[in-house]
Amino acid sequence: MRCSFVNGVSVLCKVFAMPSSPLRVTIWNEFIHEQTHEAVRAIYPDGIHATLAAGLSRQLGEAVAIRTATLKEPNHGIADDVLDQTDVLLWWGHQAHDQVSDDRVDAVQRRVLEGMGLIALHSAHASKVFRRLMGTGCMLRWREAAEKERLWITAPGHPITEGLAGEYFELPETEMYGEYFDIPQPDELIFISWFAGGEVFRSGCTFRRGRGKIFYFRPGHETYPIYHHETVQLVIANAVCWAAPAGSPYFGSGRNIEPPLEPLPNRGQSDPSLHR
Amino acid sequence: MRCSFVNGVSVLCKVFAMPSSPLRVTIWNEFIHEQTHEAVRAIYPDGIHATLAAGLSRQLGEAVAIRTATLKEPNHGIADDVLDQTDVLLWWGHQAHDQVSDDRVDAVQRRVLEGMGLIALHSAHASKVFRRLMGTGCMLRWREAAEKERLWITAPGHPITEGLAGEYFELPETEMYGEYFDIPQPDELIFISWFAGGEVFRSGCTFRRGRGKIFYFRPGHETYPIYHHETVQLVIANAVCWAAPAGSPYFGSGRNIEPPLEPLPNRGQSDPSLHR
Amino acid sequence: MRCSFVNGVSVLCKVFAMPSSPLRVTIWNEFIHEQTHEAVRAIYPDGIHATLAAGLSRQLGEAVAIRTATLKEPNHGIADDVLDQTDVLLWWGHQAHDQVSDDRVDAVQRRVLEGMGLIALHSAHASKVFRRLMGTGCMLRWREAAEKERLWITAPGHPITEGLAGEYFELPETEMYGEYFDIPQPDELIFISWFAGGEVFRSGCTFRRGRGKIFYFRPGHETYPIYHHETVQLVIANAVCWAAPAGSPYFGSGRNIEPPLEPLPNRGQSDPSLHR
Amino acid sequence: MRCSFVNGVSVLCKVFAMPSSPLRVTIWNEFIHEQTHEAVRAIYPDGIHATLAAGLSRQLGEAVAIRTATLKEPNHGIADDVLDQTDVLLWWGHQAHDQVSDDRVDAVQRRVLEGMGLIALHSAHASKVFRRLMGTGCMLRWREAAEKERLWITAPGHPITEGLAGEYFELPETEMYGEYFDIPQPDELIFISWFAGGEVFRSGCTFRRGRGKIFYFRPGHETYPIYHHETVQLVIANAVCWAAPAGSPYFGSGRNIEPPLEPLPNRGQSDPSLHR
Repeated sequence: MRCSFVNGVSVLCKVFAMPSSPLRVTIWNEFIHEQTHEAVRAIYPDGIHATLAAGLSRQLGEAVAIRTATLKEPNHGIADDVLDQTDVLLWWGHQAHDQVSDDRVDAVQRRVLEGMGLIALHSAHASKVFRRLMGTGCMLRWREAAEKERLWITAPGHPITEGLAGEYFELPETEMYGEYFDIPQPDELIFISWFAGGEVFRSGCTFRRGRGKIFYFRPGHETYPIYHHETVQLVIANAVCWAAPAGSPYFGSGRNIEPPLEPLPNRGQSDPSLHR
Repeated sequence: MRCSFVNGVSVLCKVFAMPSSPLRVTIWNEFIHEQTHEAVRAIYPDGIHATLAAGLSRQLGEAVAIRTATLKEPNHGIADDVLDQTDVLLWWGHQAHDQVSDDRVDAVQRRVLEGMGLIALHSAHASKVFRRLMGTGCMLRWREAAEKERLWITAPGHPITEGLAGEYFELPETEMYGEYFDIPQPDELIFISWFAGGEVFRSGCTFRRGRGKIFYFRPGHETYPIYHHETVQLVIANAVCWAAPAGSPYFGSGRNIEPPLEPLPNRGQSDPSLHR
Repeated sequence: MRCSFVNGVSVLCKVFAMPSSPLRVTIWNEFIHEQTHEAVRAIYPDGIHATLAAGLSRQLGEAVAIRTATLKEPNHGIADDVLDQTDVLLWWGHQAHDQVSDDRVDAVQRRVLEGMGLIALHSAHASKVFRRLMGTGCMLRWREAAEKERLWITAPGHPITEGLAGEYFELPETEMYGEYFDIPQPDELIFISWFAGGEVFRSGCTFRRGRGKIFYFRPGHETYPIYHHETVQLVIANAVCWAAPAGSPYFGSGRNIEPPLEPLPNRGQSDPSLHR
Repeated sequence: MRCSFVNGVSVLCKVFAMPSSPLRVTIWNEFIHEQTHEAVRAIYPDGIHATLAAGLSRQLGEAVAIRTATLKEPNHGIADDVLDQTDVLLWWGHQAHDQVSDDRVDAVQRRVLEGMGLIALHSAHASKVFRRLMGTGCMLRWREAAEKERLWITAPGHPITEGLAGEYFELPETEMYGEYFDIPQPDELIFISWFAGGEVFRSGCTFRRGRGKIFYFRPGHETYPIYHHETVQLVIANAVCWAAPAGSPYFGSGRNIEPPLEPLPNRGQSDPSLHR
């Protein structure tokens, strides 16, 4: 497989994976607004997931194999066999977080710890899967006023910023998200947003959990065409590459280490009945 | 209130709180082993919680007001009114993590986010409250062989190391905990343990979650007199002081910010039906 | 010594040091603008250091013993004996960073590693001492247009935010500092600023270096009365308390560990001529 | 360019760069011991740099273009034009750190901030370039007794651990490095070492500085054949790939932002004479 298959983003070749087989991406979307509100359908006629898929495909071409999944499908479209074949999961939800079954939240958490990447988009801040992995409330301030957002890079040289030439990029009309954003301090802070109405926000945050990598990315809303924006698509594509499984296996299963790695001549004995 | 009321630990006065009213500490203990195993009762005749309380009292005197709570009490001894009057919660559990009700786990998580400190001790790594706040599996390797542990300081000058004169301290006989320890990367790594049998462990880790401060401290086991050890008592006392609620309020409740802080002349309108 | 001696900030007693002897603070100021520009003298007639001293004194009363030092004094007012008696050093400089001798920069760096706190204020981002301790360029974007700044809290519950009731505070007219700010990722990000002109900035950042604690705080400029602002004074006072030396000694001097802590029966021999 | 050109490490293709042109690596070695001590020459007959080069070449094949540089060459072999053509710099030094000119230290620091990766190996902890970029003393404890070292992975899934199947790897005879290691808290802690003699050490640490990525890796000594060890070679190769320049440009040069990005109707005026 050659670098050149990635149409228009050859720069990516310099730093990211050129997998010998495509990276398997699953895009999960709540997919309610697009069916109930004409204004949303006008922007995302086939659903936000379809627009995200088109954007990823444009950025990464054959390097990714994309499938989509939505809330109303059996198992929300993310049965175990789907997750087992997913390298990176994108998540978008807004008004129906509570309808996601705890069983699927358990499964997503487990798979992230085992190495699956997770890209939590916009209102996914309040999703069960993101909150489960953060351990905090993940709430924030918001306002829907079509105001200007300017995202400043605070981590130049991070793979997620690949291809961004300037110190910032702008979105002309967005929903505002403002601090305080109730998350653990991110491992790396990639973007901070400025909003015309007076707020700031940590808009690009990375977290490692177990073997998995998580990227929270703020932009996106059902009533603005954010996911049609080329720079937003580029950042999401970068994040997908960055979050791909890598490195050593996951060593998360606890176990008793006997015999010891080193000799322990005077070792004591334990009482098995103390342990379950 | 004067510094001098803290018997024997005047050094603490230099850096920690001298509260005008005592710091309210609740020590939670599963309290099963001590009643079912003679060997454990021999070491902790009144329960691990009683030994922890005596140690804290010795270190901090009138600066703390201590209460204890155990699994079998109604609401596990930590009903809302108890948590509401708790500045710092210590947690010890081992074989009955599953018996802690989700309702109390929810309550502890909420109170930590609001500012209550949490000290998770030893096998509390696998407790529901710690796992909930971490978002990871929190498993590790272990061995019970009465082996030597040496805890090295990796953050000199951190308040939790107050009063430790040397680069390390030793525990002659401990249960081993070894990496990989499946936690998010700690905000600050205070201690790394060396074990005679060949393992290492991140034994002192701080985490901020919401307004709350969390300290995980590895030492302690039901069959070794770890909590009678003076240095262990000192570190726990330091951690209690460090984890005391401080700073601004918690701003974790999301809300809509209207009107905007700055004028937005061309602002758009949102469709209320899109939101719950 | 009693908590109540701290006039008007009794809340501090809850979390910070009530030293048995006062905390020794040295305020360093370049002290050039105030003597050469009438507009600056009008705001800071006795120098920025005098205003900072008055603010600290107002906030912390007898809990601090303050001295000041300026560039033109012998050894810039910070000879070794002064540094040896300094618990926390505040630094303000702007146009004469290059005139600070490397000898004094060496001394400040060494003392910070040994435990002295350092509060770097505003244009001290480009000072030799701050750049030395960061290892990066520490440059940023700026604009002097008397624009509004709003500082958002991103770490509620941090001691540096003690006494701040709201989610943010405002400064009506400031010099703008904008990202990218070329610093290592801070250990803790306390404030992010919003500026009317369109920028954001990491305005409150903590760093541990050796045993010492460093706080960078953005507000402050010679042509605006920022250091007369009560909230700014409060944050600086909080930071002074937070940065006070604490914890274990500094273990920064390398050395050969012989004999080994544990027996090494088959140990090898080293060739001393390989080492200096 | 195809993945398959990387002989024997096809697994790397899954996550790392397949550059369309080779990654340019410069290996810097003090190169003194190998010429003055027979025991060192026996292990590294052509210099440590030659062994490192052979190892990298074995791991990465045509994906890297390697050059070497040593202390005694003009400009220490790293004149500006060499650095300008270097994507990742490896650094090994031990007894002659002081002989490295400050001019070259300045140049390396500047290039790292601009995006060049830096791999600091073993005794490079005390090199001028590493200390400059850290801002701390970087000292540690040591012992040369041919003792066993076991490196535990604390960041499973990190690209630097690619290809490591187990939870740890061992080196049978090494020089010991022990805590306290006087570095800023690393951005990511990848390995912790256990030593037979009783110490622990943060042996794999990442740091971002400006646009550049830095990896400190402990193993390696002139009198042990550490750099002939296949796993050590693998980790260094992984680190080279990870540290390759990526992402957005470096925005480290400060500048005045005029006109403002947003209209400032009531803006103030600055006095140019206040600024240099």
